[in-house]
Amino acid sequence: VGVGLVGLGVVGTGLAKVFAEHGADIDARLGFPVRLVHVADIDLARDRGVDLSRVARSTDWKEVVANPAVDIVVELIGGTGVARDVVLGALAAGKSVVTANKALLAQRGAELDEAAERAGRDILFEASVAGTIPVLRALREGLSADRIKTLHGIVNGTCNYILTQMEEHGESYAGCLKRAQDLGYAEADPTADVEGHDSANKLAILLGLALGVRASVKDIPTRGISSIEAIDLEYAQRFGLRIKLLAVAKRAQGGIEARVEPTMIAESSVLARVSGSMNAIEVVGELSGPTLYCGAGAGALPTASAVMGDVMELARSLRVGAARRVPSLGTVALREQPLLRSQDVEGEYYLRLWVLDEPGALHAITGVLGRFGISIASMLQPEHHHERSVPVVFLTHMTKESELRSAVAEIERLASVRGAAQVIRVEREL
Amino acid sequence: VGVGLVGLGVVGTGLAKVFAEHGADIDARLGFPVRLVHVADIDLARDRGVDLSRVARSTDWKEVVANPAVDIVVELIGGTGVARDVVLGALAAGKSVVTANKALLAQRGAELDEAAERAGRDILFEASVAGTIPVLRALREGLSADRIKTLHGIVNGTCNYILTQMEEHGESYAGCLKRAQDLGYAEADPTADVEGHDSANKLAILLGLALGVRASVKDIPTRGISSIEAIDLEYAQRFGLRIKLLAVAKRAQGGIEARVEPTMIAESSVLARVSGSMNAIEVVGELSGPTLYCGAGAGALPTASAVMGDVMELARSLRVGAARRVPSLGTVALREQPLLRSQDVEGEYYLRLWVLDEPGALHAITGVLGRFGISIASMLQPEHHHERSVPVVFLTHMTKESELRSAVAEIERLASVRGAAQVIRVEREL
Repeated sequence: VGVGLVGLGVVGTGLAKVFAEHGADIDARLGFPVRLVHVADIDLARDRGVDLSRVARSTDWKEVVANPAVDIVVELIGGTGVARDVVLGALAAGKSVVTANKALLAQRGAELDEAAERAGRDILFEASVAGTIPVLRALREGLSADRIKTLHGIVNGTCNYILTQMEEHGESYAGCLKRAQDLGYAEADPTADVEGHDSANKLAILLGLALGVRASVKDIPTRGISSIEAIDLEYAQRFGLRIKLLAVAKRAQGGIEARVEPTMIAESSVLARVSGSMNAIEVVGELSGPTLYCGAGAGALPTASAVMGDVMELARSLRVGAARRVPSLGTVALREQPLLRSQDVEGEYYLRLWVLDEPGALHAITGVLGRFGISIASMLQPEHHHERSVPVVFLTHMTKESELRSAVAEIERLASVRGAAQVIRVEREL
Repeated sequence: VGVGLVGLGVVGTGLAKVFAEHGADIDARLGFPVRLVHVADIDLARDRGVDLSRVARSTDWKEVVANPAVDIVVELIGGTGVARDVVLGALAAGKSVVTANKALLAQRGAELDEAAERAGRDILFEASVAGTIPVLRALREGLSADRIKTLHGIVNGTCNYILTQMEEHGESYAGCLKRAQDLGYAEADPTADVEGHDSANKLAILLGLALGVRASVKDIPTRGISSIEAIDLEYAQRFGLRIKLLAVAKRAQGGIEARVEPTMIAESSVLARVSGSMNAIEVVGELSGPTLYCGAGAGALPTASAVMGDVMELARSLRVGAARRVPSLGTVALREQPLLRSQDVEGEYYLRLWVLDEPGALHAITGVLGRFGISIASMLQPEHHHERSVPVVFLTHMTKESELRSAVAEIERLASVRGAAQVIRVEREL
């Protein structure tokens, strides 16, 4: 079986190394040889520390797709432009495809699925979500008998690294982001990671696999971690909670809930223990109950290992002549289903305010909360001071998000309240 | 696709219910129907709360295997006698097989593999290890590009439940076992669970999938939890450690290490957080690094869900005419490889002794340890008293297990030492 690789970036180079260093093992495990036969990259001059002398090299990806010795095309260039052309071109040429491109899958999933079905070929993308963890395979096949009720995932290692650092060292978001950038855990422009867009792309893919629902990324309410302050992590701990950037999907009354946002979870939960750049996904099925999958979310070799797992699956299918054994999302047809609007969703909330240290301030706030029917589960007045203000922290009971938002808007207009409120959802299910 | 089910016990009945209640969902997901067409059990009279009126029923399993409408035979009777006949009979009749029978797989794996290969049919057994968690699928396919270095698993829910209860309530082993039996978490004869034999069977299966090694269960050093006392859990906590019954497989210098034994691990590790009857397996690959899989290890519906996942995989393969796509252990040939003898293995150890509260007692013990070259990492003298004795606890640095055993034998003969020593391995890798 011949493999063509388009894109010799970090992961692509990692894959070439896996072929070079683990190829004999992999052949032995398969019982037949799989070979990297052709690579394409716009820059072939750079030394990548891997010997490609016996592999055909092109600067034009079309030559890889057209090569009759190539049975499987691996797309690792990223983005939604040329990458889309590569995937569609490969399928049209009758090749099966492996990609790790979550943005492309999230934004063009329907188009890619249709192209694969039309071509009678497979498209696999295990590495696109939670890197090395074979959670897509678990959802697509292992749990395919089950009806998934909820999914909670830590699917962005950059954010989890920054939050873990803030928690452990009590440092600011900006300082921890800087360190993550210095260590290569965050990119120079970290927006896609820290603002939650990367997580939302992954959630869109997971919605298809776990709930059989096709949703548009732009309909997923998304909030990143840039507004989280070290004091919020500290106060969370006083309530036995930790803050994680969670991607959440749930079957709820009236529809599907989906969102990406910083979320407080019990520190006794397994997800709360997932630290540093690790990823984890917890799925609850009607039959199977909760199962959790945890591992490296990124990195050249872990990601290349997941890509190679897909290559091996396709190679095995090619060998027995069995393309399209499992649809790429594990199900024959996805339901198009609008997501619940976030204002219709209920939850418990953490609310942190800076309040002038003067009589009557607290009374005014609790008055607004009461007027919106929001009941307080617990309250904390930590001994911090900032100029003439003090922090006040509430945990609410279950309330409609829309009510909470309205109450917070009114509270922020009170004379005794300084600056913006911090609002973070508390998830008790984990 | 027609399914025949042999054995209407707890899991078999669960599977029949899944067919009855989730059948339409499953058909929709597959794009074609899968039907339970024939069941066999020696007792067909008992009401199991599921309607089998439209399913053929036999007391003789041979009728299920011989039924031409049956494409897949599910063996859920357990044991290694009739169950073996069912599996071999089904393969000989050209049917593919799903089983959850870890004892049969561990003890007759080679024979079953050969029979499946000869018949050109598949045998799947996801439910045999860690129930609902699709970890076998992950090892067989998702991580198949990787070289697994270590595997640590909590694979017996009964033991984990008992240890968690002992830890949380400071109660005795006997009391917690009794409670587990009352709640149905432990059987009337709990030997197979609490003495580690069930875990050893599962480890034998995992050795094949994770390390490509065929090992005999009887060669796996196995120790259960019945000798663990509540004070050991308490002292472990003082060192920041917890005790779990771990199934361990490792590539080490000179060979493969495998064992089942109570093990102390850092309480900050994710595995330490796996409580109650949950199972979890952590695998470390050369490329993928650590990945962890966690979920329910038993229960009728979780296990039935895993069985149904296998049925769906086989149904999909039958549909595209692709039997033997993946060998049942994910690899073409297992290496027969002897395991390292436990006395050749190194480790850190927890050593707890009861010592007469008199001058010179400690000196005599440290003298013996020193003579065997065992260096002490830390020591604890908790304020317990039992008659005239006090407990003394050591954590050692890395030492050969054989040296430690010899030293302990000599220490137990000292006049100032009462009763047997408690020795528990400390695993720092997690």
